[in-house]
Amino acid sequence: MSEPKKTIAVLGGTGKEGGGLALRWADAGHRVIIGSRTAERAEEAASGMRATLGPAAMLEGAANPQAARAADIVVLSVPFAAQQPTVTEVADALQGKILIDVTVPLVPPRVGHVQLPQGGSAVEGVQRLLGNGVRVVSAFQNISAHHLTRLGEAVECDVLVCADDAAAADEVVALAEAIGLTAWNAGPLCNSVVAEALTSVLISLNRRYKVPGSGIRLTGLPQRAA
Amino acid sequence: MSEPKKTIAVLGGTGKEGGGLALRWADAGHRVIIGSRTAERAEEAASGMRATLGPAAMLEGAANPQAARAADIVVLSVPFAAQQPTVTEVADALQGKILIDVTVPLVPPRVGHVQLPQGGSAVEGVQRLLGNGVRVVSAFQNISAHHLTRLGEAVECDVLVCADDAAAADEVVALAEAIGLTAWNAGPLCNSVVAEALTSVLISLNRRYKVPGSGIRLTGLPQRAA
Repeated sequence: MSEPKKTIAVLGGTGKEGGGLALRWADAGHRVIIGSRTAERAEEAASGMRATLGPAAMLEGAANPQAARAADIVVLSVPFAAQQPTVTEVADALQGKILIDVTVPLVPPRVGHVQLPQGGSAVEGVQRLLGNGVRVVSAFQNISAHHLTRLGEAVECDVLVCADDAAAADEVVALAEAIGLTAWNAGPLCNSVVAEALTSVLISLNRRYKVPGSGIRLTGLPQRAA
Repeated sequence: MSEPKKTIAVLGGTGKEGGGLALRWADAGHRVIIGSRTAERAEEAASGMRATLGPAAMLEGAANPQAARAADIVVLSVPFAAQQPTVTEVADALQGKILIDVTVPLVPPRVGHVQLPQGGSAVEGVQRLLGNGVRVVSAFQNISAHHLTRLGEAVECDVLVCADDAAAADEVVALAEAIGLTAWNAGPLCNSVVAEALTSVLISLNRRYKVPGSGIRLTGLPQRAA
């Protein structure tokens, strides 16, 4: 793939999941801006990743609103409780862009039990909050951070990409493929229920079968170039 | 496996999905009673399956209440609109037994869009209706009938088994393995959201990628004996 390189902001990129995605995109040659509540924590995380990837990596840190403003594509990877507050804080900076929501609606302490919001998926609430000026895409909820941070390793888990805008979904499929993942356009945003709920099932399976990171592969679909 | 053989009633066994499961269990040596709204339609379906499997197969037909009463384990495989009426009709006959709910809450015409009931999974509504005297287990929603009816073929789709009673889940895992499927105990009944919603995602993928029956495999889990 020789897609033009993008500037990607990862809000919550100081966390494990967002950090793993940021690391992989920077490693693939994209410019990545780690977002966090404070610019200091964001820059600290970016600096750690630059140490891992070497000086050619384009990785910097910024407070969430500045990160969102500077980016072509914005990724949201925060705890469920911070999802709507963070989106509200950066709403202006998102207009006209794609927002990739990675948030998993886990409700501690019973994170192995599916507890979706009333009325469906959490990401649909984000779309309602942002209005039609932002193309919201749901993806990456099921990829374990454990696997993402091991750069050399293949990730044995497919990505379900859901969006009401099919062209936006295709862009996200390409961004997933750029970091070695297999991704599928799994239908409209309401289908994100599966990806959001599946993480609790995988947590439940990890505990019951004593493994570090279970996942899913789709079957019966055409072979894809990685 | 040399589990003691069971008498399994498949309510809605005249449909494709229920019929596929009935055929496989009868082929594995279980006694199967096809249930339908009328004894005549049920007996007709059973007779067709006996013709496929040969005279050794233990397959008969009965109206749903009689089928439920005669069985050790009852399987519910009906259209979503018939789920609660059918359960209400056979509730007395289910007490003390395992009910395996295969119902997918599809809402036509947009069956490729996840549209779960308010408040979570459809199967939790069934458990509430039946009370604690019935051990309700959710399973098999994602196995395409297309694959089930081809007896010689391996089914490339894992079964997610959800139940609040772990022993009941284990029994259903064994019943899935008896017909050549790989099944996993995926946690409490509320986790059935994934299996119920996934069918719409698979329908959506089948259409988009032009395949007859996509499915999922779990990864990162211990190898299982088939």
